[in-house]
Amino acid sequence: MMRTVYTFGGGAQKALGHDEPRAKDKTVTGGKGANLAEMAEIGLPVPPGFTITTEECVRYLKEGGEFPAALHGAVADALGHVETAVGKRFGDAADPLLVSVRSGARVSMPGMMDTVLNLGLNDATVEGLAAVSGDARFAWDSYRRFIQMYSDVVLGLDHGLFEEALEIAKEDGGYSADTELSADDWRRLVAEYKAIVSTELGRAFPQDVHEQLWGAIRAVFDSWDSDRAKVYRRLNDIPGDWGTAVNVQAMVFGNMGETSATGVAFTRDPSTGERAYYGEWLVNAQGEDVVAGIRTPQYLTRAARQAAGASAASMEEAMPEAYGELARVFDLLERHYRDMQDIEFTVERGQLWMLQTRSGKRTAKAALRMAVEMVEEGLIDEEAAILRVDPMALDQLLHPTLDPDAPRDVLTKGLPASPGAAAGKIVLDADTAETWAGRGEKVILVRVETSPEDIHGMHAAQGVLTARGGMTSHAAVVARGMGRPCVSGASGVSIDMAARKLRIGTRELAEGDIVTLDGSTGEVMAGQVPTIEPELAGHFGVLMEWADRHRRMAVRTNAETPADCRVARQFGAEGIGLCRTEHMFFEAGRISAVRQMILAEDEAGRRAALAKLLPEQRADFIEIFEAMAGLPCTIRLLDPPLHEFLPQGEGDFADLAAVLGVGIDKLKRRAAELHEFNPMLGHRGCRLGITFPEIYEMQARAIFEAACAVTAKGGDPIVPEVMIPLVATKRELTLMKAVVDKAAAAVFAEQGRSLDYLVGTMIELPRAALMAEEIAEEARFFSFGTNDLTQTTLGVSRDDAARFLSVYVEQGIYPRDPFVSLDVEGVGQLISVAVERGRVTRPEIKLGICGEHGGDPASIAFCEKVGLDYVSASPYRVPIARLAAAQAALRAR
Amino acid sequence: MMRTVYTFGGGAQKALGHDEPRAKDKTVTGGKGANLAEMAEIGLPVPPGFTITTEECVRYLKEGGEFPAALHGAVADALGHVETAVGKRFGDAADPLLVSVRSGARVSMPGMMDTVLNLGLNDATVEGLAAVSGDARFAWDSYRRFIQMYSDVVLGLDHGLFEEALEIAKEDGGYSADTELSADDWRRLVAEYKAIVSTELGRAFPQDVHEQLWGAIRAVFDSWDSDRAKVYRRLNDIPGDWGTAVNVQAMVFGNMGETSATGVAFTRDPSTGERAYYGEWLVNAQGEDVVAGIRTPQYLTRAARQAAGASAASMEEAMPEAYGELARVFDLLERHYRDMQDIEFTVERGQLWMLQTRSGKRTAKAALRMAVEMVEEGLIDEEAAILRVDPMALDQLLHPTLDPDAPRDVLTKGLPASPGAAAGKIVLDADTAETWAGRGEKVILVRVETSPEDIHGMHAAQGVLTARGGMTSHAAVVARGMGRPCVSGASGVSIDMAARKLRIGTRELAEGDIVTLDGSTGEVMAGQVPTIEPELAGHFGVLMEWADRHRRMAVRTNAETPADCRVARQFGAEGIGLCRTEHMFFEAGRISAVRQMILAEDEAGRRAALAKLLPEQRADFIEIFEAMAGLPCTIRLLDPPLHEFLPQGEGDFADLAAVLGVGIDKLKRRAAELHEFNPMLGHRGCRLGITFPEIYEMQARAIFEAACAVTAKGGDPIVPEVMIPLVATKRELTLMKAVVDKAAAAVFAEQGRSLDYLVGTMIELPRAALMAEEIAEEARFFSFGTNDLTQTTLGVSRDDAARFLSVYVEQGIYPRDPFVSLDVEGVGQLISVAVERGRVTRPEIKLGICGEHGGDPASIAFCEKVGLDYVSASPYRVPIARLAAAQAALRAR
Repeated sequence: MMRTVYTFGGGAQKALGHDEPRAKDKTVTGGKGANLAEMAEIGLPVPPGFTITTEECVRYLKEGGEFPAALHGAVADALGHVETAVGKRFGDAADPLLVSVRSGARVSMPGMMDTVLNLGLNDATVEGLAAVSGDARFAWDSYRRFIQMYSDVVLGLDHGLFEEALEIAKEDGGYSADTELSADDWRRLVAEYKAIVSTELGRAFPQDVHEQLWGAIRAVFDSWDSDRAKVYRRLNDIPGDWGTAVNVQAMVFGNMGETSATGVAFTRDPSTGERAYYGEWLVNAQGEDVVAGIRTPQYLTRAARQAAGASAASMEEAMPEAYGELARVFDLLERHYRDMQDIEFTVERGQLWMLQTRSGKRTAKAALRMAVEMVEEGLIDEEAAILRVDPMALDQLLHPTLDPDAPRDVLTKGLPASPGAAAGKIVLDADTAETWAGRGEKVILVRVETSPEDIHGMHAAQGVLTARGGMTSHAAVVARGMGRPCVSGASGVSIDMAARKLRIGTRELAEGDIVTLDGSTGEVMAGQVPTIEPELAGHFGVLMEWADRHRRMAVRTNAETPADCRVARQFGAEGIGLCRTEHMFFEAGRISAVRQMILAEDEAGRRAALAKLLPEQRADFIEIFEAMAGLPCTIRLLDPPLHEFLPQGEGDFADLAAVLGVGIDKLKRRAAELHEFNPMLGHRGCRLGITFPEIYEMQARAIFEAACAVTAKGGDPIVPEVMIPLVATKRELTLMKAVVDKAAAAVFAEQGRSLDYLVGTMIELPRAALMAEEIAEEARFFSFGTNDLTQTTLGVSRDDAARFLSVYVEQGIYPRDPFVSLDVEGVGQLISVAVERGRVTRPEIKLGICGEHGGDPASIAFCEKVGLDYVSASPYRVPIARLAAAQAALRAR
Repeated sequence: MMRTVYTFGGGAQKALGHDEPRAKDKTVTGGKGANLAEMAEIGLPVPPGFTITTEECVRYLKEGGEFPAALHGAVADALGHVETAVGKRFGDAADPLLVSVRSGARVSMPGMMDTVLNLGLNDATVEGLAAVSGDARFAWDSYRRFIQMYSDVVLGLDHGLFEEALEIAKEDGGYSADTELSADDWRRLVAEYKAIVSTELGRAFPQDVHEQLWGAIRAVFDSWDSDRAKVYRRLNDIPGDWGTAVNVQAMVFGNMGETSATGVAFTRDPSTGERAYYGEWLVNAQGEDVVAGIRTPQYLTRAARQAAGASAASMEEAMPEAYGELARVFDLLERHYRDMQDIEFTVERGQLWMLQTRSGKRTAKAALRMAVEMVEEGLIDEEAAILRVDPMALDQLLHPTLDPDAPRDVLTKGLPASPGAAAGKIVLDADTAETWAGRGEKVILVRVETSPEDIHGMHAAQGVLTARGGMTSHAAVVARGMGRPCVSGASGVSIDMAARKLRIGTRELAEGDIVTLDGSTGEVMAGQVPTIEPELAGHFGVLMEWADRHRRMAVRTNAETPADCRVARQFGAEGIGLCRTEHMFFEAGRISAVRQMILAEDEAGRRAALAKLLPEQRADFIEIFEAMAGLPCTIRLLDPPLHEFLPQGEGDFADLAAVLGVGIDKLKRRAAELHEFNPMLGHRGCRLGITFPEIYEMQARAIFEAACAVTAKGGDPIVPEVMIPLVATKRELTLMKAVVDKAAAAVFAEQGRSLDYLVGTMIELPRAALMAEEIAEEARFFSFGTNDLTQTTLGVSRDDAARFLSVYVEQGIYPRDPFVSLDVEGVGQLISVAVERGRVTRPEIKLGICGEHGGDPASIAFCEKVGLDYVSASPYRVPIARLAAAQAALRAR
């Protein structure tokens, strides 16, 4: 028979089951129970207690709420252990043992019974407590608190009834605060509370302390199956058969006079990461008092007190003995857990008791510093340090942030779409943004929503604000890619283009007025709020270097401008995973040639326009190849539906008509013909190459001419990777590869130089994943375009999902936005299939991911699991990807 | 060693390899060779010859174009066999054997060498042929034809050179037709032809008949790897390693005087199916002459000649002996092949020779009659009859057709988008269509393209004509579903709505003018062309009954109006597989309530509008349940994006604003908010149910109230099948099923009656297919929505595909339009996966298909293969589906 109850604490006295690993196994004793057992085992002063296993909960629920006789016996034994350790007896009218009862599942879980304190008090023991503590007020206050808490969580009575009685008592006594009530007041209130219980329940409040205890145990077990707990489990994928443990622990009191105290502490500074004790404490107080803010807590150390210029004594000064003991415990805990700890403690009449320890939350900056310094201290090794830092937290470090001390005039709040802070003059269109930025002004581009036409303006701006669109809108995605702060979907903003004005709530702003955006919080502020530039301090560099040593996957970047390439290299990118050639088509000097191409009636007309674009594209690729200096570059041929490039307004049409020398009506008719109902599923990707091969021919020529030109200047030869988008069949790739090969052969013949190059494909349609075995016959590499693959697999348009996706996440249909974190269950299946089948045909095939997910740690972990060769992320996500890839590799071992 | 050459024909003389099944195995001797061997074996007079196997071709190509010595020997033996049979010797100057050489792969394949006739002629044998035939002109004409043909296909010379020489000869002689040239003219031309060959080739035209023969054999083998043949193979999935056989056959001549003749014949009338010989012949002519139309061919039988009132003698009358022999052959062939045969024959000096037989092409009507009558005659059994009729051909029989003899004033031609013919007055919008039809007029709805708003007008119209859109445009799909003829994409049509006029080419028509559409050809005609109503004659009914006996899958229909239900039942539908509830939302009396619901700001507003719709929907379902009288009905809850229901023009907005009492601007703003970039992937399907559960609640209530009402009237209880669309996760179904179950429980409680019902889901997203195991936990049935599944798996919007899909099919990227015939390779994988996984969870799960593919025979064959329980097709496709399902079941055995 396995043990059903484990004790912990009690000093020299051996705990029941102390030699069983099960005692510290949270699947058996729950998170809280295992933690208490562990602290006790390493010699920390933990109030003694015991844990009833999760297995007993499961049995209890299965057997319809019956407690077996054996459990009664085991609990009695355990209680005896506690009594011996504390030197008091449960229910002893002279000097009673009081206990707390808490639930404790494997993982912390809202919806379950939380805590009953002071259990063991009744009409007799309260007098004993008063006598022993010498504080009748304390004893009666504790008793009334117990009745109220127990009635609420165990007996299921409405706590409002008790609060009402308390309010009446205070009015009757003319008191305004609870602290003003005397021992007698509390005693009278206890009588009233008991009367309420009798009336409501039809029987008296239990005076039998064992009945109290078993009632509480039953309440903990029953709460596992409460509605709220069930909902939480369903949403968080927690199995219903885990059950919860019950923890019963001797009470200690920090409010027994001037030699008692309570406090919370961190073993290092959670804000800066400095190796210095950090915390707050209060004399003669209970845990709640520190948190509640009724009294101002005092500093823990003399140094901290002095630094703050405070006068109230630190614990180091006021209770040197207990403080010394606490400092010893801090060091012991850090050595034991090998991490910064967040601690709750109580001093009861000079004796230190540990109530809780857990790994402490910390800022990104602190996390980095602690991880690196703990390696230097020999506390942890490199691998542990790598695993210790949340990759997403790095995002905070890579962008400017607002000075936290500066005043803010917040106008409205939208979605925190792209992190970082920026200030500048409002501009209402992309051309203005470019013009003003060109004369050296800092601008914030404000639009209802953005489209590919706005990209040059986004580049020119310090930040972007949109009135519509979600976290994965065009503005959000492009801004993140560029590392520009962005607040999207700020629905309070309305734009009057005619008057060149904005209305935000009741405030009106004009183009040229200054605003500040905080892309990490979504706040939009009037005027210039000072910002703090990111410090890519030593600790960041050290940790990144360690991460690089331990990761298996390469990290590339999605970039198409030389500026992006340089940022990405500075952040450690090892190549380009996705260069979207269409972004180059929007530049001012080119768009009319692009439009001429699109609106051409025939191939000859298209070729004439393409001839104008060729030197421009070649120049782009030369700059990119030079910026990447020999690193691999995957260049995707034209992908978006052509109508994205069309003129939008009357002015655009008029300009173009003048340039092309054709009538506006004809242009408009042709533009209307290009309209698509579902452009995402329309005439785009390699479908453009199949129908108009001359476009891909020009692009391939530009790539190879650029590669030859850069190679001719010396340095490593460029090995371009030419990527065909939106392939669903092998034959599309066969046809397009032939176009690329032909262009390569022609260029090499002209230049008298031959270069290696790869032709590969995006896998971004379900059919492509399913047909990967065949497609790999033509593809030297696959790059998973998980944005489109998610759209098609789930049948969800990223641009239109805002209206329902938040409800979907709320209702637990998708655990997270599937455009942010890969849908491993569904989309992941297709990726696995494609990886497996691609490798059957071509074992050495190069595999990568270039969707937005390439910068998401959970998605990167999946990429490691299926064995991709690299991930590609936007420049500002490269460090995140490097760290996440290292973590994934370490976890996979 | 396997034989490399097989002979055929030769009367009593045993063919070489005659006892080997390989001789008639088309994988060995090719289609043509196997067919000739088979005809010879059953005793038909086939000119003797031999076949070199496909295996030799494969060896030849592999070994770099070498002929092994053994093959030379085998050909010599075979040639000896032919010489003995014919009594002439190859190359004999006195009486030469002449042969034809033809390629013959397993399947007929364009791009390969076709035919060389008269091989064996040279300067010496031509004199012998002249002497033996007594016709020098014939001999020299044959020789010059041989040189020209051989030079072209074997020697690779440009045939233009020879044609030019002929033209000059005719000019010089003052002739206008070839027939005017004399023997001497031909002789002189032969000399010129030989000179051309010498000049072009640098060596003389081969005089050695064996060199001629081996040259032709080599040309046949080489042609297997010609570019055209390779392209054809790739497009048709024919393996490159099949190779082609070579057929060498003794020449026979129908042009050797008045006792010679040539003809083509069918063993039954291919147009009506009547059991009567049917054909044409010409005395003293070659096969080409019958086809070329230079002379008017004569009837084969006396009866046919008399029926046509013709005077030229029939073959029955002019050549009674040869005709008698031919009739005997007809009967023999029909009994042997158990099918109507299409025959080519030649009579050489009174002797009948069979040159070809194959199953004859026939009209749908003839196919039906023959299949049924052949069973009655005991020639074939029911199963063979079922397999004999092309299901798609039935489509011709189910719709009115134009009187073929009536004159037609064709205005333009569009795509044959929905079969059948119809005439009526032009109407330019749906409301006018409804109004005019309401007063009893027949109308043709003419639109640029149609949208769901036009559905009531399409219903009211006799036929639909659109200027834009392909075979799978909205107009085409909906019209096919309704059985309305439709011509789509008639780009010659331009509409002037202001003037209520049409321009077609140079002609102008006004609303109210009469036009006739032929939806089977795409023709649009001015005025009323008389039509012929379909005859669902006895043969149709008999064959359908047989089909029903042999199919495994049930056949349901996609229908949402009582009229559709009645048509479908008349065509044999066994239930509704898809009732699209949204189609009911467009009716005039309802659309404003629907719009009120959509534009409501909150749930209360939606509920108010839904309360108006409830009685309407209930009435719809009552009608449908009554029409289907106890057959299973699958009803899909609201699916399309809400903005499809929005007002379109200014007038609509004004009307609605008046009805709702809100401002037009507010309506427009709300409508703009509902705009989606990619509505196909947007807020639709169960996403509407998740965000606005009250919509599905109303629909479920309407279904259950209707089911209770109909059941209450007596008859079989209704078992509604409620279908949730666009599910991608199990949880969506869980949530929506809860809504349906709750509505059911409420209705049953109110009505004091409980009914069985099923809740199931569409599988129309790749993710749903992949997660089928989980989804089946909640779903009692799966219905594969292959339209959407194709769109998402291939990433192709059906509405936008016209611009590239035709190029895709031309280039062999998809073998057929994947919206017409299921992409078995890609989409099929997902269906197979879903079937397999769904059955793991729920072995008895009901599985069906309700996309457009449910009416496509190739797709139905796939459904049989993966074991679906039913297919569902639009009403007019139900007979096609019944027959195709039977064929699939028989083929699967």
